[in-house]
Amino acid sequence: MKGISHPALDDISLENVCQALTDPVRIEIVGRLAKMSEATCSVLNAGRPKSSMSHHYRVLRDSGLICTRTRGTTHFNALRRAELDARFPGLLDALLKAMAVDADGEAKYEASPRSSTIPI
Amino acid sequence: MKGISHPALDDISLENVCQALTDPVRIEIVGRLAKMSEATCSVLNAGRPKSSMSHHYRVLRDSGLICTRTRGTTHFNALRRAELDARFPGLLDALLKAMAVDADGEAKYEASPRSSTIPI
Repeated sequence: MKGISHPALDDISLENVCQALTDPVRIEIVGRLAKMSEATCSVLNAGRPKSSMSHHYRVLRDSGLICTRTRGTTHFNALRRAELDARFPGLLDALLKAMAVDADGEAKYEASPRSSTIPI
Repeated sequence: MKGISHPALDDISLENVCQALTDPVRIEIVGRLAKMSEATCSVLNAGRPKSSMSHHYRVLRDSGLICTRTRGTTHFNALRRAELDARFPGLLDALLKAMAVDADGEAKYEASPRSSTIPI
């Protein structure tokens, strides 16, 4: 794929996978891709600036978590689920479950904030 | 514990756990602690400078991966295995398995390096 490279299975390291998941935007992208076969950048960007999002896709690709294919000028992204499962059995599932726990915690926090304003 | 704090279970995030595992020294510490109930810093440091190692223990503690107790001037470190299992079921086991895969790959690589020197 012109200009877009993906690491070979044996070159995917835990260190790089973890590095990719140190950012909430990248965690969100992985979580969303887990629910669909593939998605375009414009869908995943959800209105965020293309310039900063490009960096996130590159980090995710370099880690081995996602792959990107192009058709014309459109990029389609997908989780490298089968390959990750082969490389690190059980890891992706455990990470996705952990993301759900974190997201659930954040939803609860937003529903009942610890600090509240006094109603006028 | 004087001067040593640990995050509460609900404050352990996937992002911080991943951040802690972006460094090979910290990955090694977690991998070693998985094989023992607890270990002193001097055992885990394995001759590396105490000054740089202190940072690694702090990052690991702040992520929720390890806890540290003191007795006199000695620090004893342990994985927060039960708590992590409660917070993110299956994650620690999957991470430890992934570490073993990576370590196995490195061992194979060292046994048969891709580049070799020409014997004189």
